[in-house]
Amino acid sequence: MNSRCCIRDEREELTELTLKPVAYIESDFHEKFGIPRQSGLASELTATVVFTPEFRSPEAVRGLSEYSYLWLIWGFHANSPRKDGKTWSPTVRPPRLGGNTRVGVFATRSPNRPNPIGLSSVRIRSVDAAAGRILVSGADLLDGTPIYDLKPYVPYADSHPDAAGGFTDRIEYKKLSVEFPPELLNRVRPERQKGLIQVLEQDPRDAYEKKPEHVYGMIFGGQDIRFTVSGDRLTVVDVADRSNHSVKQRPAAHREK
Amino acid sequence: MNSRCCIRDEREELTELTLKPVAYIESDFHEKFGIPRQSGLASELTATVVFTPEFRSPEAVRGLSEYSYLWLIWGFHANSPRKDGKTWSPTVRPPRLGGNTRVGVFATRSPNRPNPIGLSSVRIRSVDAAAGRILVSGADLLDGTPIYDLKPYVPYADSHPDAAGGFTDRIEYKKLSVEFPPELLNRVRPERQKGLIQVLEQDPRDAYEKKPEHVYGMIFGGQDIRFTVSGDRLTVVDVADRSNHSVKQRPAAHREK
Repeated sequence: MNSRCCIRDEREELTELTLKPVAYIESDFHEKFGIPRQSGLASELTATVVFTPEFRSPEAVRGLSEYSYLWLIWGFHANSPRKDGKTWSPTVRPPRLGGNTRVGVFATRSPNRPNPIGLSSVRIRSVDAAAGRILVSGADLLDGTPIYDLKPYVPYADSHPDAAGGFTDRIEYKKLSVEFPPELLNRVRPERQKGLIQVLEQDPRDAYEKKPEHVYGMIFGGQDIRFTVSGDRLTVVDVADRSNHSVKQRPAAHREK
Repeated sequence: MNSRCCIRDEREELTELTLKPVAYIESDFHEKFGIPRQSGLASELTATVVFTPEFRSPEAVRGLSEYSYLWLIWGFHANSPRKDGKTWSPTVRPPRLGGNTRVGVFATRSPNRPNPIGLSSVRIRSVDAAAGRILVSGADLLDGTPIYDLKPYVPYADSHPDAAGGFTDRIEYKKLSVEFPPELLNRVRPERQKGLIQVLEQDPRDAYEKKPEHVYGMIFGGQDIRFTVSGDRLTVVDVADRSNHSVKQRPAAHREK
C-alpha cells in the first residue's frame, strides 16, 4: 500500500469544510430563467438578504452601511443534475461564447463546479440591523439561495479596473431594446419595473436556442412575463399574475417575520 | 411544539454545504505573523496554487491565462481557538482601527467568522496546466491553505473603483520605511527579496502591542527575519536559516511532485 495516499486523504479530510447558511436571499426570481449572468448587470434589481435567527444580530452588521458594496458568497443550491450523474466537468461551454466552445471550469463562473460556490458583489441600499435584513441591488440570485458569508467590498484590495477579462473582453453581450406596452408595464409593481426592464435587456434566452417565433415566459416577482424576441428587439406580449401556490416555497427562515 | 422550528431546521440542513479542497497554496508564510492583511498589498509576493490530484486537469484551467486576476475562495484553516470556546463573535476589533473599536463581523474581513471562508484576488503570473500549478502574486495566504474554488476576475462585474470602503477609507496604514542591510538581504533568495521588503513595509506587528525595543521574528520562506521598529522605520537585524524540521509540514498533496 502507498502510505502517501493515506496521509493525503487524512489531510484532505481535515480541511473539508461544512458551511451552514447564515442568511437566505429573497429575490423576484423563483426560477433560474431570466437571472442575469453576473451581479451588477441589472443595477436596479433589488433583493433582500435575510439572516437566519442564529446569525441575526444587530451587532454583526455594525458599520456595514458605510460601504457601497457587499460580497455575497453563496451556494448554487438549485443545480440541475447532469445527464452523466457527475456534478462537474473539467470544461464548460459558456453562454457568452455561443454555447459551443469549451473553456476550463476554473476559467469561468459556471454554476457546475467542484464546489458549487457563487460570488457576487451587490450594492448596499439599506441595512435594517434590528430586523436582520439588508436591501441590496444588482443581485443575480434565485429566491431562497443560501448565503454562507457576507464581506464588505474593499476597493483598495478588490477593485482592478484594468484587469483583463479573458473571453468576456472580446465578446460583448448586445443589449436588446425592450418594448413594454404601458398597459402591461402598469401591471408590474412600480418598484420592480426598472429592474425587470434591465433583466429583459440582458436577453434571458438560452444561448443554444433562440426562436424568433417563440413566446418565452419568465417568472419575475410572482408574475409571468411573456415576450417574443426578433433580432435585437424584445416585445412583452403579456403579464399574468400567478396564483401563489405555483410559486416555489421559500425556506421557512424567509417566511417568519 | 412549534412546527416552524423543524421545517426551518430541515431546510437549513438541506442547504448545508460540505467543501472539499480542490487545491492548496504554497507560500513563503509558515506562520500567520507577517501575512499582509489583504491580497494585493505586497504585489511582488508570489505563491503557487497546487491542485490536488483529483482536480488536477489541464482542461480545467483552459483559458485562465487570458485573465489578469483570479479569485481564490479558501479556508481559514489555522484559526486559533477563542478563549470562550466559540468560533465567532458578532463584533470584532479590526487591527486597522487600533484593535480597540468593535465593528460587526460582517463589516470586516476578520478570519473569525461564522463560516471561516477567505476571499482574495491575486494576480496570475503563469499557469502550468500540465503540472496543475498556478503561480500568482499578491497572495495573503498561509502555506498549506486549502483552496475551495478559483474563479476568473471579471472586471465588468467585480471592479467598483469608486466604492466606499467604510473605515478602511478613513484610516490609512502608514507604510514603514525598511532598512535592510545588503549583507543580510543577500541571504534571501533574489526572487523573494522584493516581496519580503513589501511585507515588512506593511508593518507585520500586532496592532495591540508595538514595542520599540523588541526584536520581532518573522518566518518567511523558511528563514527567520529579525527586525526592530522605531517610529516609522523598520530595521532588519538578522536573517537566519531555519532547519527544515522546524518548518510546519505541508499537506502531502504539496509534497508530491
